[in-house]
Amino acid sequence: MSKVANIQADVEQLGRQIFDLADKASNSRSLFGKKDLYSRLMEWSMQDPLFKTQMFRFVDVLPNLRSADEVVSHLSEYLNDTKTPVSTFLQGALRIGSFIPPVSAAIIRKNIVAMANIFITGADNKSALRNLRKISKEGARFTIDILGEAVVGEREADDYARRYRSLLDFLAEHTQSWQASTPIPANEPPLVNISIKISALCARIHSSDPETNIAAILSRLKPIALRAKELGAFINLDMESYGLKELTLELFKRLAEEPQLSDYPHLGFVIQAYLRDSYRDTEKMLKWAQQRNRQFTIRLVKGAYWDFEKVFAAQRTWEVPVYTSKIETDANYERITRLILENRKYVYPAFASHNVRTISCAAAYARTLGLEPGDYEFQMLYGMATAIRRALLSLGYRVREYCPIGELVPGMAYLVRRLLENTSNEGFLRARFGANTSITELLRDPASQLTAKGGPLIPPADNAATTKSVHPRPTPSDSVASFTNEPPADFTSSSVRKKMVLALQSIRSKFGRSYPCMIAGRPRISRDLLRSQNPARPEEIVGLISTAAPGDVVDAVAAAKRSFANWSKTVAEGRCHLIERLAAKLRQNRFDLAAWEVFEAGKNWSEADADVCEAIDFCVFYAHEMRRLSKGRLTQETAGEVSIESYLPRGVGAIIAPWNFPLAILCGMTVAALVTGNTVIIKPAEQSSVIAAQFMNLMQESGLPDGVANLLFGNGETVGSLLVVHPDIDFVAFTGSRQVGTEIWQMAGVTHPNQRNLKKVVCEMGGKNAMIIDTDADLDEAVLGIIQSAFGYQGQKCSALSRLITIGEIHEELVPRLTEAAAALNIGLPEHPSTDIGPVIDQAAFRKIQSYIENGKREHTLSYQGHIPSELRGFFVPPTIFTDVDPASRLAQEEIFGPVLSVHRAEDLDKALKIANDSPFALTGGLYSRSPRNIARVRSEFLVGNLYINRPITGAIVGRHPFGGFKMSGSGTKAGGHDYLLHFTFPRVVTENTLRRGFAPEIQRQSSADRG
Amino acid sequence: MSKVANIQADVEQLGRQIFDLADKASNSRSLFGKKDLYSRLMEWSMQDPLFKTQMFRFVDVLPNLRSADEVVSHLSEYLNDTKTPVSTFLQGALRIGSFIPPVSAAIIRKNIVAMANIFITGADNKSALRNLRKISKEGARFTIDILGEAVVGEREADDYARRYRSLLDFLAEHTQSWQASTPIPANEPPLVNISIKISALCARIHSSDPETNIAAILSRLKPIALRAKELGAFINLDMESYGLKELTLELFKRLAEEPQLSDYPHLGFVIQAYLRDSYRDTEKMLKWAQQRNRQFTIRLVKGAYWDFEKVFAAQRTWEVPVYTSKIETDANYERITRLILENRKYVYPAFASHNVRTISCAAAYARTLGLEPGDYEFQMLYGMATAIRRALLSLGYRVREYCPIGELVPGMAYLVRRLLENTSNEGFLRARFGANTSITELLRDPASQLTAKGGPLIPPADNAATTKSVHPRPTPSDSVASFTNEPPADFTSSSVRKKMVLALQSIRSKFGRSYPCMIAGRPRISRDLLRSQNPARPEEIVGLISTAAPGDVVDAVAAAKRSFANWSKTVAEGRCHLIERLAAKLRQNRFDLAAWEVFEAGKNWSEADADVCEAIDFCVFYAHEMRRLSKGRLTQETAGEVSIESYLPRGVGAIIAPWNFPLAILCGMTVAALVTGNTVIIKPAEQSSVIAAQFMNLMQESGLPDGVANLLFGNGETVGSLLVVHPDIDFVAFTGSRQVGTEIWQMAGVTHPNQRNLKKVVCEMGGKNAMIIDTDADLDEAVLGIIQSAFGYQGQKCSALSRLITIGEIHEELVPRLTEAAAALNIGLPEHPSTDIGPVIDQAAFRKIQSYIENGKREHTLSYQGHIPSELRGFFVPPTIFTDVDPASRLAQEEIFGPVLSVHRAEDLDKALKIANDSPFALTGGLYSRSPRNIARVRSEFLVGNLYINRPITGAIVGRHPFGGFKMSGSGTKAGGHDYLLHFTFPRVVTENTLRRGFAPEIQRQSSADRG
Repeated sequence: MSKVANIQADVEQLGRQIFDLADKASNSRSLFGKKDLYSRLMEWSMQDPLFKTQMFRFVDVLPNLRSADEVVSHLSEYLNDTKTPVSTFLQGALRIGSFIPPVSAAIIRKNIVAMANIFITGADNKSALRNLRKISKEGARFTIDILGEAVVGEREADDYARRYRSLLDFLAEHTQSWQASTPIPANEPPLVNISIKISALCARIHSSDPETNIAAILSRLKPIALRAKELGAFINLDMESYGLKELTLELFKRLAEEPQLSDYPHLGFVIQAYLRDSYRDTEKMLKWAQQRNRQFTIRLVKGAYWDFEKVFAAQRTWEVPVYTSKIETDANYERITRLILENRKYVYPAFASHNVRTISCAAAYARTLGLEPGDYEFQMLYGMATAIRRALLSLGYRVREYCPIGELVPGMAYLVRRLLENTSNEGFLRARFGANTSITELLRDPASQLTAKGGPLIPPADNAATTKSVHPRPTPSDSVASFTNEPPADFTSSSVRKKMVLALQSIRSKFGRSYPCMIAGRPRISRDLLRSQNPARPEEIVGLISTAAPGDVVDAVAAAKRSFANWSKTVAEGRCHLIERLAAKLRQNRFDLAAWEVFEAGKNWSEADADVCEAIDFCVFYAHEMRRLSKGRLTQETAGEVSIESYLPRGVGAIIAPWNFPLAILCGMTVAALVTGNTVIIKPAEQSSVIAAQFMNLMQESGLPDGVANLLFGNGETVGSLLVVHPDIDFVAFTGSRQVGTEIWQMAGVTHPNQRNLKKVVCEMGGKNAMIIDTDADLDEAVLGIIQSAFGYQGQKCSALSRLITIGEIHEELVPRLTEAAAALNIGLPEHPSTDIGPVIDQAAFRKIQSYIENGKREHTLSYQGHIPSELRGFFVPPTIFTDVDPASRLAQEEIFGPVLSVHRAEDLDKALKIANDSPFALTGGLYSRSPRNIARVRSEFLVGNLYINRPITGAIVGRHPFGGFKMSGSGTKAGGHDYLLHFTFPRVVTENTLRRGFAPEIQRQSSADRG
Repeated sequence: MSKVANIQADVEQLGRQIFDLADKASNSRSLFGKKDLYSRLMEWSMQDPLFKTQMFRFVDVLPNLRSADEVVSHLSEYLNDTKTPVSTFLQGALRIGSFIPPVSAAIIRKNIVAMANIFITGADNKSALRNLRKISKEGARFTIDILGEAVVGEREADDYARRYRSLLDFLAEHTQSWQASTPIPANEPPLVNISIKISALCARIHSSDPETNIAAILSRLKPIALRAKELGAFINLDMESYGLKELTLELFKRLAEEPQLSDYPHLGFVIQAYLRDSYRDTEKMLKWAQQRNRQFTIRLVKGAYWDFEKVFAAQRTWEVPVYTSKIETDANYERITRLILENRKYVYPAFASHNVRTISCAAAYARTLGLEPGDYEFQMLYGMATAIRRALLSLGYRVREYCPIGELVPGMAYLVRRLLENTSNEGFLRARFGANTSITELLRDPASQLTAKGGPLIPPADNAATTKSVHPRPTPSDSVASFTNEPPADFTSSSVRKKMVLALQSIRSKFGRSYPCMIAGRPRISRDLLRSQNPARPEEIVGLISTAAPGDVVDAVAAAKRSFANWSKTVAEGRCHLIERLAAKLRQNRFDLAAWEVFEAGKNWSEADADVCEAIDFCVFYAHEMRRLSKGRLTQETAGEVSIESYLPRGVGAIIAPWNFPLAILCGMTVAALVTGNTVIIKPAEQSSVIAAQFMNLMQESGLPDGVANLLFGNGETVGSLLVVHPDIDFVAFTGSRQVGTEIWQMAGVTHPNQRNLKKVVCEMGGKNAMIIDTDADLDEAVLGIIQSAFGYQGQKCSALSRLITIGEIHEELVPRLTEAAAALNIGLPEHPSTDIGPVIDQAAFRKIQSYIENGKREHTLSYQGHIPSELRGFFVPPTIFTDVDPASRLAQEEIFGPVLSVHRAEDLDKALKIANDSPFALTGGLYSRSPRNIARVRSEFLVGNLYINRPITGAIVGRHPFGGFKMSGSGTKAGGHDYLLHFTFPRVVTENTLRRGFAPEIQRQSSADRG
């Protein structure tokens, strides 16, 4: 501790030395001093966050733009559509031509390329070589990073592996002469030094199955590493997003433990100090090294995916893995600095930072441990902080530059990250050169800025709402503000994976049991048994189901009607509480329930888990909504009168649910009805009866009074119809096919004598959903979005993508990547963690989908069809992609409900919208585009219930994406939305005259308030 | 001006003199000094406004309570159900019995009676006499006011007239001896002095027909005045609420101009200084006196109906007629004081006030004019400000006490007003004795406290919301807060009446014209003409209507479908603006439109006017609501993503409207559909086709594009059915009968091939509405509420009252008053301003209602039936009341839609609720009760769409009383409510991923905000 306390003076001394040298060595203002586009961009972006967003988006899309017109139109869209101080000024400048006369696409592009060249060492190995030599001559070192597109298929991963190997060979060959002239000291890592991203070596990451991923990556990584050993080169594994962290560290250990590499010290990995668990990870890796007496390199960085990590975790309601303040990260970085310096025996530390405080601290602490400058190194990004690099070199420190090589297009993500870093309010460079912060301030110990308790200096509550937004947005209704979604299981955690494995074992042992109907809390067993099978292994009987007889329908409705009297009068809070208890039960049993879904519905792990989470969300959300509704709404401030609108339950409901979200939809429709005070009879789909029985059981365990919810098994034509036409049924909540939906709509139209209410139907039907891919789409994202939307759960979602519409020439680029990505999908048993594609629900579905495929093969071009491994004997249908499909064909008009995608080419957005809207359905739709104007057009003209922009079109989240469509997709209700519960209620207004004997209490109080 | 400026010193001097004398003459604290119930009540009420409300309500209901149990239970309800500091203390006290041991109903009642006796001079003439003599002996004078129930019938008005006459005789006889002992000076008004309320002399006030009222009142008033002249007594006309002001002043002039009274000076009236137009009224009356050289008395008061006037005006969106601050009233009082003193030649002024400043100012100004104390007088309320009265008498001023005579029950309104006055924060007495304000402060010139501009010292914005409320209420949604209803026409104004008369003339001249259908903006004339008749004079043909052929239906739907493409894409603001232009057109033509309703629908003036106002309200409200909806709703704050829910139009709608609100409902359904972006075909009821044609015309004039709204005439069975089943109809908005409603519901259930959407039906049907009259109901209010609810527009409202349920013995008291009130209804031509009851809509309705009446006469007790004047040849049905009706009978179960009321007796509230809820309908319902607990029970157990407490059950106001029911009354929609437009839309969610290249704009901004 005393050492730590005492180094502050050393840190300041060294820091000032570095600043002095940096100031002298170069014009310290050069970073933002020149009036080129880059400098102006940096300056404006720091002044105007809205402009920054718009410009960075423009920079992002620029390399994908094919013509001068496109470039100019995009620039104008990004500047026009958001009024910001800078954009307004810039528009003026553009208009009068005084700023960049003449504005041409070529000039803009040239400027961006020049900007990129600041940060990218070269477009290929050869062109990079000259810059590497310069670095070398300055006395610095390098490590090479290959920029490229996201890997979505095996071929792409193989390509990357090849590029890494040839890079090694290239560098070994071309740097031999340099080494001859300036030999590398013995205590220094090799000159040839490359950084590898593991995501580039794997076609699909399955968080639930790391072993399969490790095997796939190692098969490509090991040859690279062995070649490096042969060449005496250094290999570093880069660290990407948090989701890959465990995998990367595990992979490093496996690689290092390979017998042929067990004595090779020139391997390294990265620790990101912004991760809350980075200190612990470092300790673990040190222990591992200690046990094996291994040496390796750690590159200590702060972390470059801060926005992404926050968003990713927040969207899943997971704990945010990164520190939320810069100062915590800085303090943690220094803690890890000390830890690895103290373990220099095992670790060669590389401190990657541009922050003079961070750098000085590492050097000062190393000195107190008696280490020399050559015992560790500093790393910096190519093109950034040049002055500091030179200062360090002149002080005798070792510096390595991180040098990306690659084309501008795939390198854009890298460029934007660098630009962001340079404008970040919290970035050190900005603090030093942009904002003129004092040197003393810059050299302060971050740990001293944390509170006495050691906690972070938490900034005041989120005040983002007060800043302007690129997306003008209404404020959220307070109804949803405080609702929190159920976090999906994080299968990257081995303990979570273990729970799922155990649940699958446990549930399999329960196969073949019998499930009765449930009427007024009592089981009703029939002799007419239905066998619910495992669609992946049809010979496995998941359960035996008692189907309801007509008398059971009558009894169940009578039970629900009897129970209505009391249940409808329960206070809303009591009902909410009970539904929340049900949510807790579902949560307790989440892995068992997911396992039932894996077996009975053929869902893979994450699809099954997501369905359980959604069921929990429905409970919590509707309880939350009911609390809001139960408060009532004052209709109007009126003197002498109070009118309050509130909601009564409708009565007895029939809940007719589908098998594809066997728990979520069943549960959602049921709890919406119950929490509003109705009683119900549930008729689940035959195919997912066992899951329904589990749900019924949990409702009973939660304490739902007998008869409030009743369960009838059986098929729709008999049990369902009898229910719908029963005069005591006040409403029907249905989700299923168009045909059944319209039949129910018709049956409910008939009002029987003595029927209490007109029958209301909440009707959700199918979809034939389209996605438009604009010419400037980000294909890295679009390809993955398409795969997920079209083939997730074998395309058996009403939201699934079935019509892909490409605009113009993007088609040629997209389709090959798409088929490659499809080919990377694992087809297998859903119980296996790495399975992407499982079986379709049953024989009938299998036959129907196959017949569409056969028909498609006759009429259209089969672009891709997956291969079903021969050992699979269930209802497996391979992912299938057709191109050149006539938008009017059956394939493009009828709902297939399977993993079949048709691709349509459109000349322009007009045609694309026409095709997209030309459907009897209107459920979901999507667009990938980076043109603000096209996004706006699609927003207003693509008429579907749920439109998604630049993301997949499935996976609606309760509360966040109120779900439902119109036309033949539904009656216009939004499950999980603000208005959903209204469909289960009758609004009622109670008006009370408060004026009595000419005396109105509120006026009296008002006049009394006037006085005050 | 100088005089005014200089009297402040005099005022202060005199004021201090009065205060001194008052302090000496009595213990100045006696008003609140004694520890009797009254004193405690005053004290607590001033400390605790919530307690004040609850206690005054208890005091109000007390005289109506029949048993000790009722008294104790009410007291406990009023104290229990609202937690206030005082009530909590009091409950404790009651519980431990230490405060008023033992608490018995008798003691409570005795205390209240004692309290009442402070302010009421006597229960009858005889018992009052002793107190009057006391006053007289003190040197003061008196004027007598007779307390009584509200007059609802002719007999009651005759009774009052008789009581006034006998009071005159009684006083003349019994004060003869006093006059002998102390003769009245010559310049003084006679000793016998009575104050008359004109509302007591008239069974029904028709603001639209003052002449009829004047005639009726004069017929009773003149004999009283003539008798007064014979006896040499003084008659004053009291002033009640603002609505009667013009009538009262006019009546005074008419009375005074009667030849037999033209020389009689002992008549007077009242000026209320809190009225904004009181100064102008005084000037007018002075001018009238000048012209005729008449003398009369003016009693100048401040005004006692302040709460009522504010509420009454606010509920009608009328300008509030009273000053809203006390200080303005005070300043105005002094202005009028000067005016009448300066006109002493014509006016004998009586300054009624307890305010020493007000009194001193009058006296001081009189002195500057050279007037003596006997040239004017002061008036005070019996039992109040005794010390001040004595001080004034001892200074030689003339003082008259206002002495009410009557029973406690009918006198309760008077008592509560006095209690209010004594606790009012702004009351002078409170200021002096309760709050210890300094004398200087009390004697300040109110005019000096107004701002320099002469405007009022407006207190800061209404902060009533921050005070606690007796009715715990949600805050109003911002949707309705800024919406303002259209003010109904104020027929008390002669200029308004004139407009209506002119409109009736003008419209009559347009009878017999032809009206075509309207398709795509073009008239479509048919040979098949329908005659729309005046139901009051069936021989009058209001218009000739072209009925639609099947081909017209096809064309109209096609036109609407064509127009949908553009109209649905119009920006919401444009549609809102257009609908507001339509509202302006309706407003411009409001009297003409009302006149059409008078002739074609048989509505009387105010019913017709209300319907037009409601139509305007629908336009303004739905435009307002659409603006809210069009903003969209952010579904959830999510990092990296923005999801906004908004609303799309459904498509082409059929609007099928009824005749009973021929403009409002037609317009409401139409504009709801249009403003949300749909296009429509309107099918009005045959009986009100001409009104629909006027509406269509105004829509066109407002600039609605051709084809967006189309109009088809014809009957429901043919034109209506063809419309509903048309595959291109996306939704139906229907209001009408149960039979037609269920037929439409069934037809819409069928989904045709190629139909775009499931057909949605907004379905409003009938009612069989009940009202419960609790044992403690305020019958003055209940009787009028029943009459209005049951017989307004001849009972032809779906909201109309048709089942009256009385609890216990209230029946005996209620039914006679009810039949008397019914008998006071004017049956006549709707075009006549004093008509209450017009014809029913047509021959078929006439026959149907008559058959129910005939049947009722056979099966039940006919309690009352009105008489149709023989000159009326239209479809007139007399108001009819049946008692002893079996709740299960046809009369009590079927909708009659005419002026027929059945009365049911229930033993208790349980039984009453059972009868009330035992109906296939659930539209409106009502309760008159003053038991908080019973109000709460009915609130939760009387299940109807619109429940009204202590007010009529018809007359729902847009935005304030969202209207609609369930069961066989409707599908659960609320016209004029927060959720109504949702039924005309499809909700849609657009989700945009904002994370690009790992960069989320909102997080960047947030972190930048963190810095700040």
